Amino acid sequence: MERDQFTHMKIGPVKDCEDVISSMKSIVENINEVIKLLDREDIKKMLQKILDGEMVFVMGAGRSGLVAKAFAMRLMHLGFTVYVVGETTTPAVKSRDVVIAISGSGETGSIANLGRIVKDIGSTLITVTSKKESTLGKISDIVMVLPGKAKNDHDAGGSLEKNIRGDYKNLPPLGTAFEIISLVFLDSLIAQLITLIGATESDLKARHTNIE
Amino acid sequence: MERDQFTHMKIGPVKDCEDVISSMKSIVENINEVIKLLDREDIKKMLQKILDGEMVFVMGAGRSGLVAKAFAMRLMHLGFTVYVVGETTTPAVKSRDVVIAISGSGETGSIANLGRIVKDIGSTLITVTSKKESTLGKISDIVMVLPGKAKNDHDAGGSLEKNIRGDYKNLPPLGTAFEIISLVFLDSLIAQLITLIGATESDLKARHTNIE
Amino acid sequence: MERDQFTHMKIGPVKDCEDVISSMKSIVENINEVIKLLDREDIKKMLQKILDGEMVFVMGAGRSGLVAKAFAMRLMHLGFTVYVVGETTTPAVKSRDVVIAISGSGETGSIANLGRIVKDIGSTLITVTSKKESTLGKISDIVMVLPGKAKNDHDAGGSLEKNIRGDYKNLPPLGTAFEIISLVFLDSLIAQLITLIGATESDLKARHTNIE
Amino acid sequence: MERDQFTHMKIGPVKDCEDVISSMKSIVENINEVIKLLDREDIKKMLQKILDGEMVFVMGAGRSGLVAKAFAMRLMHLGFTVYVVGETTTPAVKSRDVVIAISGSGETGSIANLGRIVKDIGSTLITVTSKKESTLGKISDIVMVLPGKAKNDHDAGGSLEKNIRGDYKNLPPLGTAFEIISLVFLDSLIAQLITLIGATESDLKARHTNIE
Repeated sequence: MERDQFTHMKIGPVKDCEDVISSMKSIVENINEVIKLLDREDIKKMLQKILDGEMVFVMGAGRSGLVAKAFAMRLMHLGFTVYVVGETTTPAVKSRDVVIAISGSGETGSIANLGRIVKDIGSTLITVTSKKESTLGKISDIVMVLPGKAKNDHDAGGSLEKNIRGDYKNLPPLGTAFEIISLVFLDSLIAQLITLIGATESDLKARHTNIE
Repeated sequence: MERDQFTHMKIGPVKDCEDVISSMKSIVENINEVIKLLDREDIKKMLQKILDGEMVFVMGAGRSGLVAKAFAMRLMHLGFTVYVVGETTTPAVKSRDVVIAISGSGETGSIANLGRIVKDIGSTLITVTSKKESTLGKISDIVMVLPGKAKNDHDAGGSLEKNIRGDYKNLPPLGTAFEIISLVFLDSLIAQLITLIGATESDLKARHTNIE
Repeated sequence: MERDQFTHMKIGPVKDCEDVISSMKSIVENINEVIKLLDREDIKKMLQKILDGEMVFVMGAGRSGLVAKAFAMRLMHLGFTVYVVGETTTPAVKSRDVVIAISGSGETGSIANLGRIVKDIGSTLITVTSKKESTLGKISDIVMVLPGKAKNDHDAGGSLEKNIRGDYKNLPPLGTAFEIISLVFLDSLIAQLITLIGATESDLKARHTNIE
Repeated sequence: MERDQFTHMKIGPVKDCEDVISSMKSIVENINEVIKLLDREDIKKMLQKILDGEMVFVMGAGRSGLVAKAFAMRLMHLGFTVYVVGETTTPAVKSRDVVIAISGSGETGSIANLGRIVKDIGSTLITVTSKKESTLGKISDIVMVLPGKAKNDHDAGGSLEKNIRGDYKNLPPLGTAFEIISLVFLDSLIAQLITLIGATESDLKARHTNIE
């Protein structure tokens, strides 16, 4: 397909919104499924590494990068020294730091390249992914697996109608399911870190940006 | 509190991760609750306005801004001409465009200021918020309410332990619940738009960035 | 003007590039002019405040925001704890911090609003601007004036041809002249800070991101 | 060097600012030098390719990336359909597009990788660099050379004092000289494009973001 910035302006009237509701329900089912499959030993190891690192760096491409940023913001609220790879004042990574990569497929080219550099530096690399045996999975100190559909699964070009009867049923397209489950998981790690550190919500608020 | 970039490096060993699991379950319950309370007429109006706009602009501060970006990226994959307010090549908003603001409290200063400008231009303003009667809610053409805890609710500074027995139980801190539910909701709008437009997953892939 | 995303694809062949050369020469003349007009007492005060602050925050909208980021990156290379307002892990500003605003006109709405908040917090506010008597100029602790054309000067809609015979001759459009001079000035502040701190180029390189 | 976030707060009082002035003068000399060395045939070819492309994409890492964004913003003001690689709503690159890479050394790993992908897609690749014979230079359709010091030149770790008597005299550290000259050059390309297209300053203002 070459470019087609087609006009949507002739579509409608919108008569129902049942796909919105069924998609939300599918996402909930998917989260419930992942909760059952989480490896609690890996979660504990990941929490310990985050607590042990001198600085925390997060990285991800596209929507996984947005999830990485959302996690980094909360870590900052908790008092961690944390940076997003690629932002303006992000310093050099050192061996005592921990780097967290988010990649549904574990194969995102730029992130895998950075992962190799991180391992050359000698830092701890944690990858949050749905694919344990991926490029990033293989080089990471901890692979935190959130099982499920990644961007390149089911990519035969079938319509989403067809997918309703497939393995991933009513889920939104591409890596959406992974991105949501990784946000839910990482925000829940924050809840655990709050308990571990003994933080209160007002501690978090005191660090929240006051000039936005 | 003046600044205290305290060291986490003495905390541990991490012995359990039950808060991770209970937080994930609370998030699921929260999504299920919101599904029941959604106003389907507002959803249909919002979908129609998105289809009718010449260009779509999204905006939000902090983590709500990240959710706005995640939504914008998928709209682009669907073939919409869409921009994030504040990014480099975002052009001027015109009266035929639709602007979508994401704000849990509906009171974020910078976003409310921009909302007023948007209404002066004569564009359509849609606000996704948990507070219908907020500053942004009052000036918007459509207020898409996702009910629940916003950043400034329950801000008496109590520990999260205390919150477990409060209204919001085990939810992660600050605006987390709203940010997750807004991502889940907007990704589900995408599922509906795919049906309305008749797009396939391979259409979306063809527009997905090929240089990341 | 409503929207006109016109096609450039029929323009050409490009026969000369004399405007490129004359514009570069005009920019050089403009820098030379500003060098003569700089207030050295203000420069010294600005340097001292940057050295005295606990953390440094920078902010600006549009291209001035890009200049702010370029400056912040070098301050980080020098070992300062520095943040860009609006980036992911930027913490709360405290009274012992210094905030540097870049605004050619000194009237950028969002930046002026943030400037007022900064002064309410009790932090030091430095504005780099071409307009001493602007909104931001009036509330700042230090106004570092870089004299010259700002975005809203000469905005009668005349063609740039006409401007060649005007006050600003051959300068590029809008706030370009200010943005360039502010980058040149701030990079030269870095040269002075290097001397003051006694840094070497290899110190800077050691802090330069190693994962890009 | 492992990490040393040292305190600057004991340095001063700042007694002079002569390095600021001499650095600014060195930057001016450097721009003057580059003006003489520019290849006007390459400039014309670059202008023609920008006019001929369906969409324009810009990319760069670090401060070169900020220069790329500053250029992209002005191209948008001129009515081009232009995107920054890595921003939220940047679509897929197609063969009819032109991609402009900014890299002083021409060796930035991530940008060189993307350059190779761009050439595989069949798009036009223009690199703005100080090194014609670099990795990026070798694979580009047009290499726009801005001669001078790049980040990795003179990296023996000598103090900048020493550099005063070296080849690059009083220039600010790392790739600063290239970043400034590339901004000056690209803004001057804009001046030429304005003439070629017949735009007025009010045309540009009409496209300038109205919600910042």
